[in-house]
Amino acid sequence: MIVITTDHAAHDPDRFTNPGDTRPYWETPARADALLGAVRAAGLATKPCADHGLAPIQRLHDAGYLAFLQTAFSRFQALANTGPILRAPAYAVRHKARRPDAVMGQAGWYLSSVSAPIVAATWSAALGSAHAAIDAADDVISGQRYAYALCRPPGHHAHTDMAGGFCYLNNAAIAAQRMLDRGSGRVAILDFDVHHGNGTQQIFYQRDDVHYVSIHGDPAGLYPWFAGYADETGEGPGLGCNLNLPLPADTGDDGFTAAVEQGLDAIAARRPSALIVSAGFDAQLGDPAANLAVTAAGFATVGRQIAALGLPTVLIQEGGYLVERLAANLTAFLTGLELI
Amino acid sequence: MIVITTDHAAHDPDRFTNPGDTRPYWETPARADALLGAVRAAGLATKPCADHGLAPIQRLHDAGYLAFLQTAFSRFQALANTGPILRAPAYAVRHKARRPDAVMGQAGWYLSSVSAPIVAATWSAALGSAHAAIDAADDVISGQRYAYALCRPPGHHAHTDMAGGFCYLNNAAIAAQRMLDRGSGRVAILDFDVHHGNGTQQIFYQRDDVHYVSIHGDPAGLYPWFAGYADETGEGPGLGCNLNLPLPADTGDDGFTAAVEQGLDAIAARRPSALIVSAGFDAQLGDPAANLAVTAAGFATVGRQIAALGLPTVLIQEGGYLVERLAANLTAFLTGLELI
Repeated sequence: MIVITTDHAAHDPDRFTNPGDTRPYWETPARADALLGAVRAAGLATKPCADHGLAPIQRLHDAGYLAFLQTAFSRFQALANTGPILRAPAYAVRHKARRPDAVMGQAGWYLSSVSAPIVAATWSAALGSAHAAIDAADDVISGQRYAYALCRPPGHHAHTDMAGGFCYLNNAAIAAQRMLDRGSGRVAILDFDVHHGNGTQQIFYQRDDVHYVSIHGDPAGLYPWFAGYADETGEGPGLGCNLNLPLPADTGDDGFTAAVEQGLDAIAARRPSALIVSAGFDAQLGDPAANLAVTAAGFATVGRQIAALGLPTVLIQEGGYLVERLAANLTAFLTGLELI
Repeated sequence: MIVITTDHAAHDPDRFTNPGDTRPYWETPARADALLGAVRAAGLATKPCADHGLAPIQRLHDAGYLAFLQTAFSRFQALANTGPILRAPAYAVRHKARRPDAVMGQAGWYLSSVSAPIVAATWSAALGSAHAAIDAADDVISGQRYAYALCRPPGHHAHTDMAGGFCYLNNAAIAAQRMLDRGSGRVAILDFDVHHGNGTQQIFYQRDDVHYVSIHGDPAGLYPWFAGYADETGEGPGLGCNLNLPLPADTGDDGFTAAVEQGLDAIAARRPSALIVSAGFDAQLGDPAANLAVTAAGFATVGRQIAALGLPTVLIQEGGYLVERLAANLTAFLTGLELI
């Protein structure tokens, strides 16, 4: 079943991108429209996401962070010199350990990048996206082999207490936790978005019930820069449960799918009960936010590789910013999975 | 003697402020021009800063940070999608401990706020500003009662390894270290810029040879938000050598000068050999970057209070963003000091 997030379109920070910026806000409503077009063209059944409340999100995200996301825009509007978008003016980088009370200060505490501002519709869009992921998790727990959550905004850069890189709530992590809480037993997450899922890594870094495997462009030259290196393998009970496979710039289909194969081998060796896939299509050649060179043929291969694993699988939409290639890449991926 | 930084005008990030931004880059070349106009109108002797090399700056600032400031703009220009201003796209907030190699990643490691971007002229301007502070320190070490460094960009938000809030090199801290290195014995820093000098605090937080006292707007509602609270009193050997006196919004001349008096009493009790003053005029009523309500009469009183302490004194220019009030406030302050 394809679960559609329904409340995302008003979350459109690109409307407030400044003319002088070299980088627009690539995470646009048009992305979800393109993906939905591909789903409908394939004749797949869809449903809007249900309302699951906050409880399954509170299982992972920090209470102060959720309160900030919910209230930040209205608190910002109450200030002088306000505007339609809350960007953090300063960030709680090193040497500072205190969470401030003021909304402008909290913006620098909870929003870790310029690419995670708050507009009026951000909270409802993020909540709807998470609920779509929960629906897809529930579908798979209920016996479906596959469910796909057409999530927007994406989630894998969202930490327990920090937004970043277009992400606010970690949809894949919330789906994984939902499955665990419903008795799935250990699960694995395969993340083939071109950016390392630093939020997902952080959330599960000290746990052994979620095995996180990420294929991504080398963070030495690509967002999120501060994490995603090969030597980050987990801590404490989670040691060995985190596998990063960074790829050099310009890696094409062969190198990309070889890394996916390596990641899936590692997942198979741990015999999880189910798989969550953070599916981004921004490894696409020419994606404005990345530097790899994958094509639709590569994403079709990834679909076949995932299908061959034979696990109940929740597909969660992450990035992909070359909008004119999104429909073709999703179609190729779903074809590889034999869903169309 | 008044030491003038000479190489600052080309460091003008406000030229690249985007039309949609609610906050311009208030730290403009016009600020230094206004202050210099006041100095010349008073007939005070001036000299351009000398070249002191990097050594006195390397005494305090991290080597990697200095290398970044020196090379960041040219490394940025070598990338695709470049432009005239390097802003950090993501910040090394919590959960991330690794300094990346790429310049865009290092921007998020070394630049802690949107208000500390790098333009072509940033390094030379920051270096000139620091050298002016060193000249003023040398003048006082050589026996002058007062020296004033007309510094731009300002410095007190610069940490050992982090720029922020219009600041890149910590001019006041570099002046203090210069005096110590030339045998001054223990010194004190009085910082009456309206923003807490979080960089100066961090640099000396574990040391007992520099007593840091700051009068500022309560960081609960004002930059730098993450530091500047009254309970931050120093650590280790520096315990008790850091005094923060945060003031509520709308504090006027009486409350402001009472806090300065309290700070100077604390300084006098420690019997330092010399005083460094981080002099900002942004406590001024109506300053766009602050929320206090001080007037020229208040700054004149501060000048009298400092003079009454009777110490050899290095004056370092920090903030003040209501440009049309800068000349009057500097003139009032210097009059209070009986320098004019």
